[in-house]
Amino acid sequence: MSIHYPNGQGPLSASQSVKKKINPVNFADRGMSLEAEINASNTYYLTTGQAVIHKKPTPIQLVKVDYPKRSAAVVREAYFRRPSTTDYNGVYRGYYIDFDAKETKNVTSFPLKNFHQHQIDHLAACLKQGGICFAFIKFTKLNEYYLLPASFLIQTWQIQASGGRHSIPLTTIKKWGIPVQNGLNPRLQYLPAVDQLIAQQKGVTNE
Amino acid sequence: MSIHYPNGQGPLSASQSVKKKINPVNFADRGMSLEAEINASNTYYLTTGQAVIHKKPTPIQLVKVDYPKRSAAVVREAYFRRPSTTDYNGVYRGYYIDFDAKETKNVTSFPLKNFHQHQIDHLAACLKQGGICFAFIKFTKLNEYYLLPASFLIQTWQIQASGGRHSIPLTTIKKWGIPVQNGLNPRLQYLPAVDQLIAQQKGVTNE
Repeated sequence: MSIHYPNGQGPLSASQSVKKKINPVNFADRGMSLEAEINASNTYYLTTGQAVIHKKPTPIQLVKVDYPKRSAAVVREAYFRRPSTTDYNGVYRGYYIDFDAKETKNVTSFPLKNFHQHQIDHLAACLKQGGICFAFIKFTKLNEYYLLPASFLIQTWQIQASGGRHSIPLTTIKKWGIPVQNGLNPRLQYLPAVDQLIAQQKGVTNE
Repeated sequence: MSIHYPNGQGPLSASQSVKKKINPVNFADRGMSLEAEINASNTYYLTTGQAVIHKKPTPIQLVKVDYPKRSAAVVREAYFRRPSTTDYNGVYRGYYIDFDAKETKNVTSFPLKNFHQHQIDHLAACLKQGGICFAFIKFTKLNEYYLLPASFLIQTWQIQASGGRHSIPLTTIKKWGIPVQNGLNPRLQYLPAVDQLIAQQKGVTNE
């Protein structure tokens, strides 16, 4: 008797396509995306008057838009464009806040390929103007979150470009990054970590 | 002999559709849109290292996206969403900068209907966090530009809501706004006006 694999429980062949699992936004779901977690936290901080930080929309190159009578305009052909900035920015305690959110399934290091040159350039430009800039990173399997100061990231990026290693060890991130706790409301309590970054950066500036 | 109108030179009937004229970005064109002028100025300020200010992309609700093999993803159905913020933000001299750009063909006053509640709310929230917030307005027929402090705009908006007038007289704008000069490079030299706003706001905070 041959073995049947109902409901797709059988082994997948290499060529078989697997549909991307779409995770609904669910505060109780530990597997929710870092982006959804940050957005939920930003909404909390906005409604409680603590900070105004938003995700920027993805830039789109419009090619064809229909304007039907008595209904909303419909985009019929458009392409995604590469953003020229990071994903998040806003204002907190008078400071300009700017960061990108990145997650990895790795458990011992964070791959630098998650970042792009234009993001590094943007963070460097904002840092030069006195902004509070960082990468908000998540080790999904460890359920650990860190704010990594942009100054450290830029330096590491430059070392990589001149032949250095292509990832940042978790031990290094624990040393240079600031841990962020996750909870319920806000999902990610990251403003205390930002306070630490501000104190660090002001300390450096005053030297 | 009947008269022919070759090349569409004949008179247009009311029902005939007229294609929207698309103005190319041209620095010499005094009629270029305020948005194009601000974007050109921001590019100048970015490349000269003076400020990092970007226009946010228009938010789009994606419904259908095709992923053809070996070519870029194509958006096939999407709708424009109402933004929850203003159009421009960034960092300058350590300050968070936030503004919306609005133009009018009026010559004696600026209609408040150019603004929306969510923009006023956003400016108020950013102001509360110590941001430098304003409306960048242009009287297109007069070729005059002003930065109008958000605090003034919010106050005027509230007076309107309780039965006040629906526009701001140019004389009032001349009194409360800061004029911006236009030229070639940058097209709109607005950072000196922002400096004045910063000085004003710090003065108010220190009182």
